[in-house]
Amino acid sequence: MPRPPQRLLSPEIITEAAVESVDETGDFTMPGLAARLKVRPSSLYNHVSGRAEIVELMRGRLMAGIDVTSTAGTWSDTVAALAAEYRRNYAAHPRLIPLFTAHTVQVGVAFGLYNALAQAFSDGGFGPADTLHAITTVDSFVLGSALDLAAPDVVWASGPEVNDAMKAALATSGKNPERADAAFEFGLRVLIAGLVANSASAR
Amino acid sequence: MPRPPQRLLSPEIITEAAVESVDETGDFTMPGLAARLKVRPSSLYNHVSGRAEIVELMRGRLMAGIDVTSTAGTWSDTVAALAAEYRRNYAAHPRLIPLFTAHTVQVGVAFGLYNALAQAFSDGGFGPADTLHAITTVDSFVLGSALDLAAPDVVWASGPEVNDAMKAALATSGKNPERADAAFEFGLRVLIAGLVANSASAR
Repeated sequence: MPRPPQRLLSPEIITEAAVESVDETGDFTMPGLAARLKVRPSSLYNHVSGRAEIVELMRGRLMAGIDVTSTAGTWSDTVAALAAEYRRNYAAHPRLIPLFTAHTVQVGVAFGLYNALAQAFSDGGFGPADTLHAITTVDSFVLGSALDLAAPDVVWASGPEVNDAMKAALATSGKNPERADAAFEFGLRVLIAGLVANSASAR
Repeated sequence: MPRPPQRLLSPEIITEAAVESVDETGDFTMPGLAARLKVRPSSLYNHVSGRAEIVELMRGRLMAGIDVTSTAGTWSDTVAALAAEYRRNYAAHPRLIPLFTAHTVQVGVAFGLYNALAQAFSDGGFGPADTLHAITTVDSFVLGSALDLAAPDVVWASGPEVNDAMKAALATSGKNPERADAAFEFGLRVLIAGLVANSASAR
């Protein structure tokens, strides 16, 4: 009898299956990945050490798509460009976000973004502690905005509880991606203005 | 023979089981909830219409904990107080966040927060479109910050790829919740400063 065809496995193939699983269900398990790839769970461990490594492989796959070379203009132009790139890369996989934030960043490629942000804030006159705070602020705003980009067309269903101010605001809402894009552009402009103000006063 | 004991079900008990499931696995399914509650899936439908209603029940449960009455001070003080309250309530259940952002907000109690934010931005002189953008910006920043609060003690593992600016920033990092709290306070101050600047220029 011929041997059954050997399923080709690699860290890349396992990573791809994990991304699919998280996109569909919000998480992945080693047995679940094995079933998805039609291999035995033990076969996975010939290629990856386990769950934590797969999370880092997924992070690396996403972060590798971020162009960190757009450094024309002032430090705040650089931060704005990096934030927009960062959001663009995460928008397609919003359910990965809580997995990533729950794990220590270890994969080298992720530091391309964080190094570029740290350099920009350092250039802007922020000290090391405020640089870390500023990076975290950009991180939080971008990841929240990536989740918002995956929101349904109607984010808020207007009902009897809605007051006049909220009703007027909701009446201006378009559909995604235009709605989320406009909100992100507004928020990024506000955030950069606040960072510039804090940078100047910190000098 | 005595009948087997009837398992008491209610929307609240189903909601609680769904929150537990999302906290543990990142998602919930109707069969999974039935197994968790040791009832038949069909029994769940005597109390809830399905998955979408359970998401809204979970949102209502979380949003009900937000104190929206803290409106002392200026409009921007109100926004800052609401943002801090909002983050505090979501911090314990970060994995609910991508589920909530993927569904239309319908539950009445959630509008307590959004009404209060809309009123504050309206008081601050923002027009309806910018009010919606500003609410979305606060939403994104707060939800990202709630995810950050659930991050491990070491957010970034320093390695050979880390540049000098990022290395210096990382050297200042404390542990959670202090690290995330300090970053949130910094980010909120920056965001409010940017909003105040944009409000004044919008007048």
